[in-house]
Amino acid sequence: MEHYVAGGTQGPAALRKLTSTVLDALAEGAVERGGPLPAGGPDAVTAEVRAGCTPMLPEHGSGADEALREIVRVVAKGAADPSDPHCVAHLHCPPLAVAAAADLAASALNPSMDSWDQAPAAGIIEAEVTDALAQLVYAGPDVTPDALITSGGTESNLVALLLARERARAAGARTVQVVCGTNAHHSVQRAAWMLGLPTPAAVECRAGRMLPESLDRVLGEYAGAPVLVVATAGTTDEGLIDPLPELADVAARHGAELHVDAAYGGPLLFSDPLAPRLAGIERAVTVTFDLHKLGWQPVAAGVLAVRDADDVAHLSFQADYLNADDDTEAGLPDWLGRSIRTSRRPDALKIAVTLRALGRRGLGDMVEHCVRTAEEFAAAVDAHPELRARPGEVGISTVLFRPVAADRLSADTSADAGDASADAGDALVAEVRRRLLDEGRAVVGRALAEDADGRRKLWLKATLLHPRTRAADLSGLLKLVADCATEHRADDRAESRAEHRAENRAESRAEHHVEHRAEDRATEHRTEGDTP
Amino acid sequence: MEHYVAGGTQGPAALRKLTSTVLDALAEGAVERGGPLPAGGPDAVTAEVRAGCTPMLPEHGSGADEALREIVRVVAKGAADPSDPHCVAHLHCPPLAVAAAADLAASALNPSMDSWDQAPAAGIIEAEVTDALAQLVYAGPDVTPDALITSGGTESNLVALLLARERARAAGARTVQVVCGTNAHHSVQRAAWMLGLPTPAAVECRAGRMLPESLDRVLGEYAGAPVLVVATAGTTDEGLIDPLPELADVAARHGAELHVDAAYGGPLLFSDPLAPRLAGIERAVTVTFDLHKLGWQPVAAGVLAVRDADDVAHLSFQADYLNADDDTEAGLPDWLGRSIRTSRRPDALKIAVTLRALGRRGLGDMVEHCVRTAEEFAAAVDAHPELRARPGEVGISTVLFRPVAADRLSADTSADAGDASADAGDALVAEVRRRLLDEGRAVVGRALAEDADGRRKLWLKATLLHPRTRAADLSGLLKLVADCATEHRADDRAESRAEHRAENRAESRAEHHVEHRAEDRATEHRTEGDTP
Repeated sequence: MEHYVAGGTQGPAALRKLTSTVLDALAEGAVERGGPLPAGGPDAVTAEVRAGCTPMLPEHGSGADEALREIVRVVAKGAADPSDPHCVAHLHCPPLAVAAAADLAASALNPSMDSWDQAPAAGIIEAEVTDALAQLVYAGPDVTPDALITSGGTESNLVALLLARERARAAGARTVQVVCGTNAHHSVQRAAWMLGLPTPAAVECRAGRMLPESLDRVLGEYAGAPVLVVATAGTTDEGLIDPLPELADVAARHGAELHVDAAYGGPLLFSDPLAPRLAGIERAVTVTFDLHKLGWQPVAAGVLAVRDADDVAHLSFQADYLNADDDTEAGLPDWLGRSIRTSRRPDALKIAVTLRALGRRGLGDMVEHCVRTAEEFAAAVDAHPELRARPGEVGISTVLFRPVAADRLSADTSADAGDASADAGDALVAEVRRRLLDEGRAVVGRALAEDADGRRKLWLKATLLHPRTRAADLSGLLKLVADCATEHRADDRAESRAEHRAENRAESRAEHHVEHRAEDRATEHRTEGDTP
Repeated sequence: MEHYVAGGTQGPAALRKLTSTVLDALAEGAVERGGPLPAGGPDAVTAEVRAGCTPMLPEHGSGADEALREIVRVVAKGAADPSDPHCVAHLHCPPLAVAAAADLAASALNPSMDSWDQAPAAGIIEAEVTDALAQLVYAGPDVTPDALITSGGTESNLVALLLARERARAAGARTVQVVCGTNAHHSVQRAAWMLGLPTPAAVECRAGRMLPESLDRVLGEYAGAPVLVVATAGTTDEGLIDPLPELADVAARHGAELHVDAAYGGPLLFSDPLAPRLAGIERAVTVTFDLHKLGWQPVAAGVLAVRDADDVAHLSFQADYLNADDDTEAGLPDWLGRSIRTSRRPDALKIAVTLRALGRRGLGDMVEHCVRTAEEFAAAVDAHPELRARPGEVGISTVLFRPVAADRLSADTSADAGDASADAGDALVAEVRRRLLDEGRAVVGRALAEDADGRRKLWLKATLLHPRTRAADLSGLLKLVADCATEHRADDRAESRAEHRAENRAESRAEHHVEHRAEDRATEHRTEGDTP
């Protein structure tokens, strides 16, 4: 069946057979993996995957069925699966089955969003999606907002800076100065570099948030020049929301524009109780808004909301084969200027199906679930004798925590804060994370962030994005981390290694990880199997 | 089922139900459409799609099954489907079912390619894919090539220019001057604009190909400055391949670097008889290579091959949460610098499955099929009394053709070439294309290109990418175009409109389009149903 095409009236029958093979291989790979990620660490996983997928370009093919069965099984067995409750390192969500299923239609029909004659319906669906999301960000009668679909927050931030540069140029300036917090996502720096803009000026943060008084000071240095201030609603490391109203006030006073990177936090707008946390976002000229984080879409599902629809015209471009003047005059829509890409997958399709399937409230409920789970998880961390959560507010659905053992080690060393290799406590935190990865037990993130004493320390990070995992489902994770920290310290003390190991083994008979993992798996299955 | 996640051991069961709904809706929509694209033109299609998909963000959801059934049916009914033999406008391929099925695994598992702990296996599969493709472009013992996965030719060209800029900067220059043919894809201009480079200098073309002597002249103007020459292997308008060995010689003589945009032509390398057409490509520092054109992947499947693997380091970037130094030292792979994106879909997975399923020869055979079909189609055009193909070589799988009636009209007007609204013949060509689109009968492209007399004229364009359509399956398309041109001229002559219509109606009783379309559909089904 390897020569069958996916479209037309016959494609679906071919796809039915082939996707059945894929689903079998996905299930088989998940069972073989038996955890949130494969055990053995990078070298072992690489060797096994390589053995399963080479030669990558054989002289003669092995057929569609064999290729799907083998390669999909290998990739499933070797996945870091965000649908596992112990996979919480990144803003890497478990996609909804409904969104993944809708995405199959995108692959099969293959509309390309750069011209009407490649995507007559998909283009309209995209327009409806972007209208709805633009209205969600910029409500009210005195705005005519628009939104663009992007490949993610990185492209949204890039386009935001590009639009700012072009507004500046249109006003006669040579460039635009970007000003952002030290808490901003690295894509802001990278976008400025790509676009040939000056290096962004840094605004100080305290407790993970931009300081309005620091912004005021920095903007004072750029009086008269076009400036784009980039604030964040949901920082990557801590999930914190910058003080948007205050920052918008400062920016306005200096005549600077504001862009808000709400790649993480944007979907709070789906929720009535949580939306007020983003108050002030509507004062931004552009807003980055991802739906492959708190929106449960497979990557990519990026959005850039634009307050003034006319701004988008800065991206317009003429290519006779796609948008000749006489075609446009004759009524063929011109979509080329809605992206910096040309051929473009209809990522709006899966978003459209998800918005309709769940509605605003359904999505809002799921966002609220994650926020609530994070608060409960932080409380459970603090209730654990060997762990503590970072003091202060929980950021959206991100919890930073640390083994108490790491604090004891940090206290024993006098290294400068922020250098994991120099501070023994930070080194323990990093080592615990890597050991859990190597053993295939948990995918936990890491973040440098201020402690209550103002020192920057390395923390373990749990980014809770699973729409159904509850804090109780994560008790096993806390035990894994605490035990791993204890074991690691034991390993480090060569003189007492033997007795520590024996002790750990004795303990493990009563409450071994494996049993915990089995229990968690049962929990997961129950959660998964619930009727919605 | 709208809250189920796609991963884990339970996701596949949820996906089995939901993808079944999707496949039913795809089949239903294709039957309802009954042709290569929906009839009625942009306004009618927009109205119907909008009615079927709004409200886009309801307050309460309608459930996964309803949302999938309705929205997928709407998008399928309103698709321009490249698996229909009459859908030939663009470099917009019908994706293989095996590739679309593999892509489902990407959506379900959602690996993100920016760190090992989000994609342990998918990252290795990508590395194997990029190694294989890098070797395909840059064979031989004295090179250490690499390749990057991109969102398509546009991003590949952007990254190629970015790498050139960074090489120039590393050598102490301020920027790089891009030099490209007037036949280059618009993304080259756009990339230079985005990156803040000088406007690309234009090299003259003759008969659609860059002139080495013009390149020599242009490069003479930039002596001493870093220059990147961009040549094309498979132009968008004509499918032509620039004279790569001669251009490489000229560039080398001037100390300029060469980039080849082989987004279209690159896959000729899979074929033993066709690969020699790309001789000289290995002299480029970078090569754009798309697999969502002659590679039958759903968008996106872009590649940028890089001759010197060390070059990729210009994209490296540090973000502590993704690639902290101590993690990298401890053996966690650092993948952040392999893209200008951060979160990134594993597009390599569908490519890997396709390479394995078909092998090099299977893909080569399909490329050869398209090239052969284009040659046969061009001959069939010339055999048609009312049509003629553009004189000269057929470009890869692209055939430009024109109703003879357009030539008669052009001869009657003395307008400047290249302005479709000013030349009556060109206006007829554009109108025929739009009418076929409006009537839902064919999706044919347009291109401005030189005729044998050296004048630039507007042509209809057929880009033949279907791996199983034969020239004989396209006879109906020729008749559609010829009849449409005749009808249109008739419509334009108000004084004789009535009799022409009657004549056309009489003719249509014997050989009506609808019957042709039914016949074509039968052909398509037969083609589809063949055992591979």
